[in-house]
Amino acid sequence: MTSLTTVLDAADKALPQSLDRLFDLVRIRSISTDPAYKAECRKAGEWLVAELASLGFEASLRDTPGHPMVVAHHKAAAADAPHFLFYGHYDVQPVDPLELWENDPFEPAIKEIAPGRKVITGRGTADDKGQLMTFVEACRAYKATLGELPISVTILFEGEEESGSPSLKPFLEANAEELKRDFALVCDTGMWDRETPAIAATLRGLVGEEITILAADRDLHSGLFGGAAANPLHILAKILADLHDETGRVTIPGFYEGVEETPENIKASWETLGRDASGFLAEVGLSEPAGEKGRSVLELTWARPTAEVNGMIGGYTGEGFKTVIAAKASAKVSFRLVGQQDPDKIRAAFRAFVEARLPSDCKVEFAEHGASPAIQLPFDSPVLTKAKTALSDEWPKPAVTIGMGGSIPIVGDFQTMLGMDSLLVGFGLVDDRIHSPNEKYELNSFHKGIRSWIRIMAALGKRDA
Amino acid sequence: MTSLTTVLDAADKALPQSLDRLFDLVRIRSISTDPAYKAECRKAGEWLVAELASLGFEASLRDTPGHPMVVAHHKAAAADAPHFLFYGHYDVQPVDPLELWENDPFEPAIKEIAPGRKVITGRGTADDKGQLMTFVEACRAYKATLGELPISVTILFEGEEESGSPSLKPFLEANAEELKRDFALVCDTGMWDRETPAIAATLRGLVGEEITILAADRDLHSGLFGGAAANPLHILAKILADLHDETGRVTIPGFYEGVEETPENIKASWETLGRDASGFLAEVGLSEPAGEKGRSVLELTWARPTAEVNGMIGGYTGEGFKTVIAAKASAKVSFRLVGQQDPDKIRAAFRAFVEARLPSDCKVEFAEHGASPAIQLPFDSPVLTKAKTALSDEWPKPAVTIGMGGSIPIVGDFQTMLGMDSLLVGFGLVDDRIHSPNEKYELNSFHKGIRSWIRIMAALGKRDA
Repeated sequence: MTSLTTVLDAADKALPQSLDRLFDLVRIRSISTDPAYKAECRKAGEWLVAELASLGFEASLRDTPGHPMVVAHHKAAAADAPHFLFYGHYDVQPVDPLELWENDPFEPAIKEIAPGRKVITGRGTADDKGQLMTFVEACRAYKATLGELPISVTILFEGEEESGSPSLKPFLEANAEELKRDFALVCDTGMWDRETPAIAATLRGLVGEEITILAADRDLHSGLFGGAAANPLHILAKILADLHDETGRVTIPGFYEGVEETPENIKASWETLGRDASGFLAEVGLSEPAGEKGRSVLELTWARPTAEVNGMIGGYTGEGFKTVIAAKASAKVSFRLVGQQDPDKIRAAFRAFVEARLPSDCKVEFAEHGASPAIQLPFDSPVLTKAKTALSDEWPKPAVTIGMGGSIPIVGDFQTMLGMDSLLVGFGLVDDRIHSPNEKYELNSFHKGIRSWIRIMAALGKRDA
Repeated sequence: MTSLTTVLDAADKALPQSLDRLFDLVRIRSISTDPAYKAECRKAGEWLVAELASLGFEASLRDTPGHPMVVAHHKAAAADAPHFLFYGHYDVQPVDPLELWENDPFEPAIKEIAPGRKVITGRGTADDKGQLMTFVEACRAYKATLGELPISVTILFEGEEESGSPSLKPFLEANAEELKRDFALVCDTGMWDRETPAIAATLRGLVGEEITILAADRDLHSGLFGGAAANPLHILAKILADLHDETGRVTIPGFYEGVEETPENIKASWETLGRDASGFLAEVGLSEPAGEKGRSVLELTWARPTAEVNGMIGGYTGEGFKTVIAAKASAKVSFRLVGQQDPDKIRAAFRAFVEARLPSDCKVEFAEHGASPAIQLPFDSPVLTKAKTALSDEWPKPAVTIGMGGSIPIVGDFQTMLGMDSLLVGFGLVDDRIHSPNEKYELNSFHKGIRSWIRIMAALGKRDA
């Protein structure tokens, strides 16, 4: 029996106790956005500190202006073992509307939802208490069998992820030395499907911008002024329509600077995933890919930048009709970024693009709504390769390297503030109903999640050949 | 002394009594839109019936489902005299915010606002009680001196003009024979300036349409779907941007069918009015004419059709930012029509234009918001020519034939329901603050307005040479 098999066996045997511990954590109502649950958030942090201390971690609860952070350290036996920072969050979303829950959200239970398919129900089971506990329980199995961990581990559990993480950046800044490790492990993502584990290696960045076009100094009557006075809705419509050419490409000068084509082997692996446009879009009642022509939906949503109008308003929008020419009109526009696109340059280029389309007697006001660059783990990173093999050993189907269309702020912060890359591995499923009533986490995700981390830690602890 | 001079002199002498009568009418709080003033509206109608009866009119108050109509008839002595329908409205706008009024809106007064420039203050003085009384007092001067009117007159005073005229069309339909006369005289418009009387000979028509673009069956996360899913705001922006070409012309196929160029002599007369783009637009903080290139602002607003976006909404429009791809987006669009443009054809052509730009997996919903054709009194109509001469005789400067950018529904109804053209003459000024606090009517408008109608009636009663 290899040492890996010993640890995996121990995890299997301890599953009932692992579940008991997860249930204890889920019972703590750590809703971070609601001040009424402030004490519960602290309690969840304290519970985790005690749990980690019991495993031999040097663990502490660290106060912030908001909810406290859990920080814990455990050195590997080998002095030259690599050192990883594991990140998860102990806070959860609110549970309204409560009447839609089939079970008490804070009284976790095991339910069989199909023959042989069991799930753990409750708020936070998938997002993110169940996920972070897969790692904690993997550490426990190592300690219980081998008495040590194959890698050095620092743990950071946040209590404000569901309420905008106001304390995170100051905390990272103040504790950079303690938290900057060789690599981060982030467990807050999902599987490709129930049989296929996934590693998210690219995350699109985001630039948010609001523009307001100002024309006449008051709303005008379209009978009196129509045909002679500038209409800000026309100007705005023209600007927004101009953002894309006939092929769906964004027309802002310099927009594609820093965008590289996805390697052919990665594109080929995506093609095997069987997500075609019709299937992906049919789920939301659509059928035609709307973006750049000649690219798959996975490429469009994972590896290509976008310009998207998220909101627009101007003039009379109530019931009935008013023949008004508005004094102003505004739109919220966001850009998803990939590769090396520079958020500041994109914002400046967009502003110049707008100003170039502005009649000389109109004005424009801009408002910033955030900026984060894209994240890209090199497809040939050794950490990625090792984790991929470890996951493929555990699950029925080989692990896939995927992209994510949205951004995960923590990964950007690790990158920009600590210069640290992240490995994103998680065991959620698309139907886990995170943030919604009847959240669940597959029992299989929890069990094989623990086993996956045991394997990944083993692989990461091995010296490179 | 000619008979005309006699009548004019009598009107001059009776001015104090004419003002007393106008004041009596203004004191009646006939706010048609507020049910609290229902009895006051009826009282205003009754007051007018009594007034007209005292002049020898066969006058009656006619009930409708809303406020009553005043209908009155007076035959000219000459059996072959032409017969005109005079229209005005006795209802007024609400007076809020009351605290902004310098005088009680229902206690009319004479104020000198500049040396030698007196105005009558109060709600309805300009819109439309003062205006309709210019005609009534003109009739009184004729009766008091010559004992007869030079033309046969039917009067229609409405009590719902400020609240959408719900009873008007059914009333016209039910009483078509009684109301259809050779020509209508409508006194609800204004002068070009304080010295220059104006006849509005063209009124633009209007087609109102609302379009809603429906894409996905729910709002989507732009991280997950951005770049692949149709964004209804993009589709809508493209449609609206496509409505105009680079020269400002509307691009809808067939849109300019029935649009004729304004005669050169009319355009030349407009050029003498001294309203250039910079002056007209500067009043509202603009400077560049925004519509069709190479045309004056008067032509653009009086004689050219438009396509105008009056409102648009979609996606997230609150504070901050939400990276959403909306399920739907909508816009309210109106078309101002001129000449022989057919409202139904314009609506159909616009709908086809929208549908041609719709991705195959999106839908569009249309909602109608009214349709009225343009009105155009032939520039060489004898009624117009006679009225123009009569007005030019009365005022310091010759009368001008103008257009109006907006529509006056009653004129369209007279045209379509009774086959009757309208002569639009009025003595309001652009600074009369109708619908606003401190409404006023120039004493000069009232006095010379009465004299103008005396002259116009005389001219209209003369046989054509």
